[in-house]
Amino acid sequence: MSPDLLFLGLDAGGTRCRARIRDAEGRLVGEGEAGPANARRGSRLAIEAMVTAARAALAAGRLPVDSLSRLVAGAGLAGVSQTREMEKMRAEPHPFARLELATDFATACLGAHGGGDGGIVIVGTGSAAYARIGGAEFRFGGWGFEVGDDGGGAPLGREVVRHALRAADGLAPRGPLAEEALAALGGDQDAAVEWVGRAAPSDFGRLAPLVFAHANQDPEAARLRDECAGHVTSLVLRLAACGAERVALVGGLSSAIAPHLEVSAQALLVEPAADATEGALALARNSAL
Amino acid sequence: MSPDLLFLGLDAGGTRCRARIRDAEGRLVGEGEAGPANARRGSRLAIEAMVTAARAALAAGRLPVDSLSRLVAGAGLAGVSQTREMEKMRAEPHPFARLELATDFATACLGAHGGGDGGIVIVGTGSAAYARIGGAEFRFGGWGFEVGDDGGGAPLGREVVRHALRAADGLAPRGPLAEEALAALGGDQDAAVEWVGRAAPSDFGRLAPLVFAHANQDPEAARLRDECAGHVTSLVLRLAACGAERVALVGGLSSAIAPHLEVSAQALLVEPAADATEGALALARNSAL
Repeated sequence: MSPDLLFLGLDAGGTRCRARIRDAEGRLVGEGEAGPANARRGSRLAIEAMVTAARAALAAGRLPVDSLSRLVAGAGLAGVSQTREMEKMRAEPHPFARLELATDFATACLGAHGGGDGGIVIVGTGSAAYARIGGAEFRFGGWGFEVGDDGGGAPLGREVVRHALRAADGLAPRGPLAEEALAALGGDQDAAVEWVGRAAPSDFGRLAPLVFAHANQDPEAARLRDECAGHVTSLVLRLAACGAERVALVGGLSSAIAPHLEVSAQALLVEPAADATEGALALARNSAL
Repeated sequence: MSPDLLFLGLDAGGTRCRARIRDAEGRLVGEGEAGPANARRGSRLAIEAMVTAARAALAAGRLPVDSLSRLVAGAGLAGVSQTREMEKMRAEPHPFARLELATDFATACLGAHGGGDGGIVIVGTGSAAYARIGGAEFRFGGWGFEVGDDGGGAPLGREVVRHALRAADGLAPRGPLAEEALAALGGDQDAAVEWVGRAAPSDFGRLAPLVFAHANQDPEAARLRDECAGHVTSLVLRLAACGAERVALVGGLSSAIAPHLEVSAQALLVEPAADATEGALALARNSAL
């Protein structure tokens, strides 16, 4: 391997593209960011976002921004669930010495387990489970806000709205969770229904913390939290059934929900060793072996 | 009252407008239909649909279609939840001798209880509860597909899709309900997710009958049916708490769900005496008193 080579990890997400460069000895060279690199917006735009983030990381490391050809890159791509989309990305020209592509699930898992075997359960706005075990990949859940993503923040926030509307109707107890949710939704049912009409899944997700804030005082909040924890438990145990011996929770709700999983699932939990960008770096290094 | 006067009942729904004419003695003169008369599409269009349906009913009764001015009309309007919308409809010119307006909830309730006090729980694509007791109106639920309508066919169908996807992932038992639902959704998870992306609430609603078809053999179907029945039970008992002594279930799921309500709710159930068009006729007759 040429000593001039550098490794680039890219977390090519739907909100932003993160880049991190390390040298052959693993020392940090620099980090950078760019806008969305979601492949669904087009493979050319995704590559361009990756290049922008890589140039920023080079600049942060005080390297010429035209040293792209020195970079052995690995990227975890959001929104690439089908083989066809991945092939299209692979066919796209790029300025790197090499570009190894995987799903964002794979790089998050590689990052969480230091490149080794294991599973992750994503509990962010949505939810999904993924594991790499002995070269095989497993994936469960993640079917979207409407009919999947149970255990994620957006469906949990939707249950908060549902509970608030039911409580206002006298169909459920009107405790602190319902009161605070109704206030956040505009004060009454009509305002809440208008709010729902404008809300994206991420807006529902922003209501999820109310559940954890009130779970010790409000039995309805505790019920919603425990239902959420039940979904996450199912995903963890599903990965275990595939052979995962350790599972990391990743995403914004991880630390709030972890203590409420069933004991059998909690026993499998490990802290993520590193982030998805580090997983993408592992992908890059493995590709150069 | 002039013996020439006829009474017209209009069920001005979002899918179609139904009209029925009776004479002063209550004898059926004729029935007719027209397209949607949902006030949300504009009050002028709603009136035009009512007129078209009324002309069809006159023609069916072999009366001149220009006898609109002989008709004392009552109409139950879908999609008019706010006072402002109702006022706008009331300000609209019309060719009838008189036009009395109410919500479709009110006319369905008048029809179900022969013009007397009582409540209704609508279990169609959506769900909602309404009662008229001693001149007072009560209304609960009906907050829409996303966060309300529990007990209705569309949320029940959504649970069918959710269950099918979970079963395909090994997160739930893969029984007859999951198998038939997956087949209906295109055969696999990717097809099902595409189906969801295109589906309206009414499409989800069309999956609800699968729950009742499999509930005797598939415990997951029985669980979904019982959850649905629990929501309908809550709505019935909420009306009872307001003083409703009899409650009629109306809408497509009524007969399937009724036997599964809690005993305390079943004890309040009565068969609807007549439909919402008949309730609109009662509204017309009351206005002429």
